[in-house]
Amino acid sequence: MKTYVTGMARTRTGERWDVSIRDLAAEAAEEALDDAQTDRVGAIVVGNMLSGPLASQENLATIVADAAGLVGVEAIKVEAACASGASAIRVANALVASGEHDSVLVVGVEKMTDTSPGHTTAALSLAADGDYEALHGATFPALVALMMRAYMEKYGYDRRDFAGFSVNAHKNAMGNPKAMLRRPITEEDYMKAPIVSSPMGVMDSAPICDGAAAIVITAEGRFDRRQDRPAVRLLGSAGATDTAAVATRRDPLWLEAAYRSAKRAYQLAGVGPDDIDVFEAHDAFPAITVLALEASGFAKPGQGVMLAKCDEICLRGRLPISTMGGLKARGHPVGATGVYQAVEACLHLRGEGGSNQVENARIAMAQNIGGSAACIVTSIYGRED
Amino acid sequence: MKTYVTGMARTRTGERWDVSIRDLAAEAAEEALDDAQTDRVGAIVVGNMLSGPLASQENLATIVADAAGLVGVEAIKVEAACASGASAIRVANALVASGEHDSVLVVGVEKMTDTSPGHTTAALSLAADGDYEALHGATFPALVALMMRAYMEKYGYDRRDFAGFSVNAHKNAMGNPKAMLRRPITEEDYMKAPIVSSPMGVMDSAPICDGAAAIVITAEGRFDRRQDRPAVRLLGSAGATDTAAVATRRDPLWLEAAYRSAKRAYQLAGVGPDDIDVFEAHDAFPAITVLALEASGFAKPGQGVMLAKCDEICLRGRLPISTMGGLKARGHPVGATGVYQAVEACLHLRGEGGSNQVENARIAMAQNIGGSAACIVTSIYGRED
Repeated sequence: MKTYVTGMARTRTGERWDVSIRDLAAEAAEEALDDAQTDRVGAIVVGNMLSGPLASQENLATIVADAAGLVGVEAIKVEAACASGASAIRVANALVASGEHDSVLVVGVEKMTDTSPGHTTAALSLAADGDYEALHGATFPALVALMMRAYMEKYGYDRRDFAGFSVNAHKNAMGNPKAMLRRPITEEDYMKAPIVSSPMGVMDSAPICDGAAAIVITAEGRFDRRQDRPAVRLLGSAGATDTAAVATRRDPLWLEAAYRSAKRAYQLAGVGPDDIDVFEAHDAFPAITVLALEASGFAKPGQGVMLAKCDEICLRGRLPISTMGGLKARGHPVGATGVYQAVEACLHLRGEGGSNQVENARIAMAQNIGGSAACIVTSIYGRED
Repeated sequence: MKTYVTGMARTRTGERWDVSIRDLAAEAAEEALDDAQTDRVGAIVVGNMLSGPLASQENLATIVADAAGLVGVEAIKVEAACASGASAIRVANALVASGEHDSVLVVGVEKMTDTSPGHTTAALSLAADGDYEALHGATFPALVALMMRAYMEKYGYDRRDFAGFSVNAHKNAMGNPKAMLRRPITEEDYMKAPIVSSPMGVMDSAPICDGAAAIVITAEGRFDRRQDRPAVRLLGSAGATDTAAVATRRDPLWLEAAYRSAKRAYQLAGVGPDDIDVFEAHDAFPAITVLALEASGFAKPGQGVMLAKCDEICLRGRLPISTMGGLKARGHPVGATGVYQAVEACLHLRGEGGSNQVENARIAMAQNIGGSAACIVTSIYGRED
């Protein structure tokens, strides 16, 4: 059964001390339902990683259903580390495509700034392999820094070669009123940034923040086609895993889960890398962006970092990425990120990208990565008109 | 598309200090795959509530996939408080019924005894409404005790009237080699038990424990029908919610989410309460059992507690419940419980219930309840031969 994105919304990211996690989620939920012009969904699926440790709330989907005025509907929270958002979309899509519900609301939400940064960093480490990574003190920046260093040594690159990804992300955030870091950075800013975990600095790292995004997924024939905007269809999506710990992989520089999920999503959508007009990459760290570009078929191994140039990845480049600022500058509220990516990809398909609109975008891909590339969901959306 | 339970397993419950959460989950996963005679599933869905706070591990489905030798498959964790297990079954079933995967493994797992009981009780309170219940010190026993007292006062019952549920559960656990509390209790034991939250005592309360259970769900036509046992089909299931906080419900003694989910499951399965041969009730507390029996159509409001008699609920009664000990005596590893219930219901349909076999069981229902009856999943399974 064909499924469509019939409503979408995203809140401003940043330090949202004005709202609790339930109200932040409800803000996105209600706006997405308004956008879909419906108040009837059969279920709500919430993508969230850390509401227990950081917001003292589990059973979160029921809480959000209640806050959003949807008491009665089925409610399920989905957790897959930083890939929770896209995994929630996968679940909602299956509930619709199987005929269980005509329409399902997905809300991705994370509240990360109501506690100390140290506590939040420790909580994020729960996504690493507890016994073989986190217990030994490895945080995510540390794990990815090792991957970045291995890449630089294997292929002979310098730190500076990665700068273009962050420069592009910050530039694009300027045109996104919902983004957290709406200011430009230069290559020199990138190079001079304080080191977080060598060779990675602050300008390699996506910021912790609060945020919520929502989409409504509806079965074909169960909504009225609108005259004022094109329909957006979920052409295909897939999830895949790798070993949880980086050290146990045959090749730590090959993202097998990105390869597998992208391959299957391409198959289902009937497209290939050359057909993608917009790519919302999971740019939590540039090294991950590079490896994901390679595994998803956009560059050969060892050449992904060469895409960090404006004619490649800028809004008018060959493959625009991080079009609304990406994780780096829009912000990375972890469980919400995958839903933000979906919304941002679909904005271009609707022609609602504002000053950041990618011209003539017809097929958009979003890739959401959890753990150290341990679980990855790739989704491809298409414009119908 | 019709879907079947083609494999199932459950571990011994109790204090499983011999294994970590990943190994406990893998134990059930591998046994269920063996039972299904397959090593090929497209995804793993893990039902779990508290792996973050209690086992220092999120991204749990990827971790379990890795531990169970399933690296590569899609992996999703589902959280819906104590209804996490059945919600995971709902997600897996949708992934199969939508055609995304031919076969999906569900693992319910919880590790609750590696920390202090006080810490575990606090973590369980994360399933209550954080702002309106938990923050004020309300634990689950306290919330349910208020419901039990209201029931007793409204309908004129005594504490003793509830005893039969716990007596039945402990009796049935004697015949279940995987159960935690394999010892009988009498009505006097029930009455003399230390009070936890008046009017509820220890013998009203399901024990905290570790445990994992697993089932394999497969699409019709994607598995070989076996000669040595009947096929078990998931006839219908549904999830529904009520307000998160008990105090905001119109009637705290009416479980609207049980009513809604049971009604839809009956519709999908084409059966009614009179057709149910086995009912795995969510007997975390007898007051919840009573209200669930009423809302699910097995008794009129105010009369559910009258079913606490052997000719009603025992293995040879009119509606056998808690047939393998229920939450009360098999144990309640919260995120795993819904999967234990599914396995136990299906054991009767396969004729593999051992000394606890319910004769001629053809239709079995399981009901999994999260929060103070805030989110509820009802599932109905049928025997085909």
